[in-house]
Amino acid sequence: MTFTLTPIGEVRTEASKLPRHYTVSDVTGQIVVNPAYAEGLRDILPGQKIVVLFIFDRSETFTPQHLVQTPPHTGRETGVFSICSPVRPNPIGLSVLTVTAVSGNVLSVTGLDMMDKTPVVDIKPYIV
Amino acid sequence: MTFTLTPIGEVRTEASKLPRHYTVSDVTGQIVVNPAYAEGLRDILPGQKIVVLFIFDRSETFTPQHLVQTPPHTGRETGVFSICSPVRPNPIGLSVLTVTAVSGNVLSVTGLDMMDKTPVVDIKPYIV
Repeated sequence: MTFTLTPIGEVRTEASKLPRHYTVSDVTGQIVVNPAYAEGLRDILPGQKIVVLFIFDRSETFTPQHLVQTPPHTGRETGVFSICSPVRPNPIGLSVLTVTAVSGNVLSVTGLDMMDKTPVVDIKPYIV
Repeated sequence: MTFTLTPIGEVRTEASKLPRHYTVSDVTGQIVVNPAYAEGLRDILPGQKIVVLFIFDRSETFTPQHLVQTPPHTGRETGVFSICSPVRPNPIGLSVLTVTAVSGNVLSVTGLDMMDKTPVVDIKPYIV
């Protein structure tokens, strides 16, 4: 049983060096949504946080050796489901970004930890 | 361009009536992970919150009519990317659950808003 995802848009950023995680990022850029989905953005407002789900489309293929990994910033062996490594059984990433502007099908955002052209598959409200 | 997800496990719960959202749920159950991935759970501890990504495998197919929806609990027309509706361009759900016990490939959890047998595709640390 498998499920197929089709990107709803992509990340755009001019940053070439990206932080390891959105919690330590002040990188700006855009989420450019396929115009077919633009109407779904209508209640997103500047100042809001959003949850963005995306595909780690350039990370190496997951193998059983990646079930436990050692993140460079901790140096501690950790199970893959307790870390945000891009090398995971299903290469889905999650970032919480802050919206700074909304224009049609484009969200300007800050807090990026994704590379330019990263495929975005969902946007959800940030609820704590 | 599409991406394929393969479940890493599934939800088990005896609850037949589920709350609309994990923030208002005290439903208990388990996340049963495919034994091949059990080693990846090793740093998850009772008392922790985890982010669970899953597939809305029984929701209706998304059409452009679903770009704006009216959630029953608000009665207000809202863009799909500002609500947690199971009917969305890519039917991925996100729930924050509390782990109550860990035993091999099984996480006992509370806060479920997913149906029995819901396919789980990722578990991530909960970071605010």
